[in-house]
Amino acid sequence: MKSAIDLIEEDDLEDLAVGCTVLAGGGGGDPRVGLLMAQHAIRNNGPVRLIQLSDLSADDLVVPVGMIGAPTVMIEKIPNGNESKVICKVLEKRLGKPVAALMPLEMGGLNGMLPVAWASLNRLPMVDGDLMGRAFPELQMCTPHLYGIPSWPGVLVDERMQSILIESSDDFWFEKLARTAVTALGGCGCAGFYPMTAEVAALPLIPNTVSLAIQIGAAIRNAEGDPFSALDQVIATYPLIRGKVVDVERRTTGGFVRGAATIEGLESDRGRVVRIEFQNENLIVLEDGKPLASVPDIITLLDLHTAKGIVTEHIRFGQRVVLAAFRSPEQWRSAEGLKVVGPRAFGHEIEYSPIEENYARIA
Amino acid sequence: MKSAIDLIEEDDLEDLAVGCTVLAGGGGGDPRVGLLMAQHAIRNNGPVRLIQLSDLSADDLVVPVGMIGAPTVMIEKIPNGNESKVICKVLEKRLGKPVAALMPLEMGGLNGMLPVAWASLNRLPMVDGDLMGRAFPELQMCTPHLYGIPSWPGVLVDERMQSILIESSDDFWFEKLARTAVTALGGCGCAGFYPMTAEVAALPLIPNTVSLAIQIGAAIRNAEGDPFSALDQVIATYPLIRGKVVDVERRTTGGFVRGAATIEGLESDRGRVVRIEFQNENLIVLEDGKPLASVPDIITLLDLHTAKGIVTEHIRFGQRVVLAAFRSPEQWRSAEGLKVVGPRAFGHEIEYSPIEENYARIA
Repeated sequence: MKSAIDLIEEDDLEDLAVGCTVLAGGGGGDPRVGLLMAQHAIRNNGPVRLIQLSDLSADDLVVPVGMIGAPTVMIEKIPNGNESKVICKVLEKRLGKPVAALMPLEMGGLNGMLPVAWASLNRLPMVDGDLMGRAFPELQMCTPHLYGIPSWPGVLVDERMQSILIESSDDFWFEKLARTAVTALGGCGCAGFYPMTAEVAALPLIPNTVSLAIQIGAAIRNAEGDPFSALDQVIATYPLIRGKVVDVERRTTGGFVRGAATIEGLESDRGRVVRIEFQNENLIVLEDGKPLASVPDIITLLDLHTAKGIVTEHIRFGQRVVLAAFRSPEQWRSAEGLKVVGPRAFGHEIEYSPIEENYARIA
Repeated sequence: MKSAIDLIEEDDLEDLAVGCTVLAGGGGGDPRVGLLMAQHAIRNNGPVRLIQLSDLSADDLVVPVGMIGAPTVMIEKIPNGNESKVICKVLEKRLGKPVAALMPLEMGGLNGMLPVAWASLNRLPMVDGDLMGRAFPELQMCTPHLYGIPSWPGVLVDERMQSILIESSDDFWFEKLARTAVTALGGCGCAGFYPMTAEVAALPLIPNTVSLAIQIGAAIRNAEGDPFSALDQVIATYPLIRGKVVDVERRTTGGFVRGAATIEGLESDRGRVVRIEFQNENLIVLEDGKPLASVPDIITLLDLHTAKGIVTEHIRFGQRVVLAAFRSPEQWRSAEGLKVVGPRAFGHEIEYSPIEENYARIA
């Protein structure tokens, strides 16, 4: 899809937030707080230019940003906006050049919204794209990892303006050090990781995902009749079950929210039961012990009436939902990609099978 | 005491190591590894100039260095020397000026030796003095904290050359963030904290403690007859009990080694029993439930025959020892100082009473 949007105005923010819940795969945090922050920032500082990497000079510094930690904490320990200024300042000092643009680390949930607020606050443009094409829970699960592009120097900042600048040439160590720091900071923190020049960023970028999220939100909002059809027009949607949440377990440990939810079928799906396992994001869907869908495909619970996404921390008993899946960005479907974000990377001993093939079997 | 030593040569290192065990108060880590590193460094790079702050220009950058973490880990996960180069590089980049001199964060155990090795490796002079006048387990327990001199930017580096640059204007938060990072790095790490100009460092510096440690070691080595008398000539020594270690418990948790040791009296002290509680360093000595000595006074187990200090991780059942105390540096005996390093700062609900007064009562 080619970007048709080059400015994010206040009117686009609700659509972006809805799109972020759909692409999140249950993770990335509730976009609500980010929506309010982005509205406030744009009212005070004006709209955010949404640019392509080709609009920048090859050497320009692009900083992917977002919050890391447990989404259950993010909805209570909210950022104040100034963290983004410290992120820019620390990286500018370290790298010896000004930040030319921000971009989302991941396109999902809160982390699809915060970069808009932060871009507006810092009067910087935002690149239309991200490093996951969805949300994932760990830092090596960013596309630069596949190309050997370093995650460091990366910086964490909390609401007290405390900063932690981490340099490690091993992305798994980097994840461990950042996660530990975030836990010490109280469960979540604001981050700028994988700083890159525009030239380098062109390789790992998953393009136009910000526009895509806005288009998803607009399609659902403007739907005449079934919002799921409208959604399917923008992004191929594979509904797995219509049903009701009958069980949800959730625990916040080690800087993540982990757990599972059970959906019992309604209407034509009566009699079916599926189970979703999540670590921030929904990882795998099982029916009778067999996988229906798995990471890296995007698995999202959608509200049965509105088609808006439900992030894992908001799953509640009794919710009427459609559990849907969307195709993963191509980068993650390679053998290298699956090593990093396939089911085994999360401890699930199953083979990845693309959702469109699974769906052909069950539909 | 005025410094009479202006060069640390290979021949001084054994004396320095012995002095470090005496001043350590049980903490700071076993100096053995640091001794070998310093010998190796000085053989390859030449001796280390031991300077006064007045030998530097007012704006010169002085970096206090050492290892932080659990001493029980430090004797197994040893540094390779290059960490010190990364410490200097990261702080030089952050502060925009070259490091002019290193100095010990604390004058005790391993942390009295490593700065010598690192100064030699980086061909830098070392300031004769430290920020504790002994060893203490936590980072806010450095004299600059008493003067509101910031601990940040501070950097941690591990043997993989991973670095973590921490900036926090709250020294207790700083300690928490550094301690958490050290735990993630495996239990210990190399640190450069409280970087200061020479002008600023003049206020918190506890001067000439490096010379003092060398003089202590030399006095014990050259003693004709009783090494304890020789020691007492250099630093007033308050022996609390001559006895045998009959119990020691030790656990390594949260980046510290914590525990207690029991000493039963021998010879003229037969019938007496004292208990030492430690958190890296010896904190308090109890007899019949009453305190005999406490932090900030320096409490050290000395070998009964050699008068060399025994660090907490080397206390063993059956060791014949003299438990001795030494006066704390004056900075720590103020009301402000006791708030930070008095018995209550470690959770012991007793009043601090200076060792010379306690000793007058029991002697």
